[in-house]
Amino acid sequence: MRCFWDERQRLHDPLQEFFNGALHPAADQAKRVDAILAAIGRTDAPADAGLDPIARTHDGGYLQFLRSANDRWQAAGRDGDAFPYTFPVVRRRALKLDRIDALLGRYSFDTATPIGPETWTAAYWSAQGALSALVAVTGGERAAFALCRPPGHHAGADYCGGYSYLNSAVICADAAIAAGKRSVTILDVDYHHGNGTQDMMAGRDEIAFVSIHADPATDYPFYWGHADESRGNILNLPLPRGTDWTAYQPALIQAIDWIEQRAPELLIVSYGADTHETDPISHFKLKTGDYGSMARRIASLGVPTVILMEGGYAIDALGANVAEFLGGF
Amino acid sequence: MRCFWDERQRLHDPLQEFFNGALHPAADQAKRVDAILAAIGRTDAPADAGLDPIARTHDGGYLQFLRSANDRWQAAGRDGDAFPYTFPVVRRRALKLDRIDALLGRYSFDTATPIGPETWTAAYWSAQGALSALVAVTGGERAAFALCRPPGHHAGADYCGGYSYLNSAVICADAAIAAGKRSVTILDVDYHHGNGTQDMMAGRDEIAFVSIHADPATDYPFYWGHADESRGNILNLPLPRGTDWTAYQPALIQAIDWIEQRAPELLIVSYGADTHETDPISHFKLKTGDYGSMARRIASLGVPTVILMEGGYAIDALGANVAEFLGGF
Repeated sequence: MRCFWDERQRLHDPLQEFFNGALHPAADQAKRVDAILAAIGRTDAPADAGLDPIARTHDGGYLQFLRSANDRWQAAGRDGDAFPYTFPVVRRRALKLDRIDALLGRYSFDTATPIGPETWTAAYWSAQGALSALVAVTGGERAAFALCRPPGHHAGADYCGGYSYLNSAVICADAAIAAGKRSVTILDVDYHHGNGTQDMMAGRDEIAFVSIHADPATDYPFYWGHADESRGNILNLPLPRGTDWTAYQPALIQAIDWIEQRAPELLIVSYGADTHETDPISHFKLKTGDYGSMARRIASLGVPTVILMEGGYAIDALGANVAEFLGGF
Repeated sequence: MRCFWDERQRLHDPLQEFFNGALHPAADQAKRVDAILAAIGRTDAPADAGLDPIARTHDGGYLQFLRSANDRWQAAGRDGDAFPYTFPVVRRRALKLDRIDALLGRYSFDTATPIGPETWTAAYWSAQGALSALVAVTGGERAAFALCRPPGHHAGADYCGGYSYLNSAVICADAAIAAGKRSVTILDVDYHHGNGTQDMMAGRDEIAFVSIHADPATDYPFYWGHADESRGNILNLPLPRGTDWTAYQPALIQAIDWIEQRAPELLIVSYGADTHETDPISHFKLKTGDYGSMARRIASLGVPTVILMEGGYAIDALGANVAEFLGGF
């Protein structure tokens, strides 16, 4: 399987994130990719499809913010990565805001997703990898993989969050539709609900989103991913902490049946290895071999598939988990 | 003038707040009140009017959260004050959330407003002080002062933020209406917009809110307090950084004219001394003597007035500024 990766994706390398009342070492460190690269072997550099496919999916003001945020942060006399601290929870609306702190809150929803000097560059090439995987699949490959890092599925049209800045899955889906596909489904098997992806599904009948994830009543992102948000082109299948493969399979079968009924021309998988039993920030109990079983079930759909990396923080197991998943296709 | 203060208000004493990418010493430390107490002399302990007047204004789930948040934080194995890190920016709605971190974000909008073991107690007595000042004024006093600390004007019906947990101004206004007043106006002269107060004005024609504050394009709380939010019972008068008394006066006169037209039976003043030229987190240029001029202009309305303390962080000037303002009545 062709695998896409660009060394510039390493340039985003946050030191810290703020949660549980303190700054902690960032979970999405650049070294996460070494474990994956060692396991998957050869990778291809993505082509540069430019800004257009990104601007098709994301808000223009947000993209301008992402590109300039750290410069404005430094210009305000601050060091290191830029963090928000105040958030427009009551109502978001278009506002002329003249302070970096105001913009940071306007365009994000947590304090775990700092913006460094090269975050834009890394996120840009992460999205380009996804677009190159799409080109490989529309060109006839059965499946292709993009080592998207930073990940994408928590990013909405106009906000970052959950270590995500550009939503590669939706960028890819939008590009496929623009290129003539009539129906695309995004299957999200990351431990955390892909709230950014879901948020961009409104009024998009040609794109569907199905997600199997930890119950947001107990797990990030808390406010999205609940079962009652399912409607039309959205299916949420939250599962309790402690879910193992036996308990996971029925949800996967339900997701696959739902996808089959939609008969998409393209499948995009947001793959997270943070459902693994050793993941340090998650609470499912999947084993490495389960990812092969999961992949074979998804592959049984017979739909051309773009696989995008999302989360996964158990670095010792990460390479094997990704290789096992890709091997199932 | 009668002044209300309860020693239990000191029990909320946060160590730190998170902004500008780091934890900093909290601005709303309990020792702020020493400067004010030394300047105003004798204070009275508030009567305990119980939970009913607080529950009339605030959401029941939010009050339950405030009372239990730090216990749940400690039960989750955390130390010190409870901080949120993820916020429901897309849409807030009723959700069954089973984790303290989810609740913290659900019920707040910044990372500067931590909840300690005694935050509830301190906020409760701060609100009781406001209610006792109201009783003094409805009993015939020309004006009365409550040293509300923690402050209140950033707290909404179901959220804390901006060092505020219970909105004493709205609690007071609601209590006055419940006691038979037909019209109450809240005048907010804190440096920061009273977004929580404004947020509770919707559909409340018997209560009005007028605020003179720093332009939210550059100053906290950023997303609320813009001039275009003025409507019906809300008047926002944002002013640029650097505003001195000469530039402040026309806005004050406009506010007073607006209040006069409404002919309220009761005036509640959210008073912040953070418009002072030496305030460490603000950027107006008022001098101590200006607070006397401000108070005399407000007093010229001839309306019974409850004065509530909000912000003010220049501890060396704080006592003189409060005394000067109260002396103007």
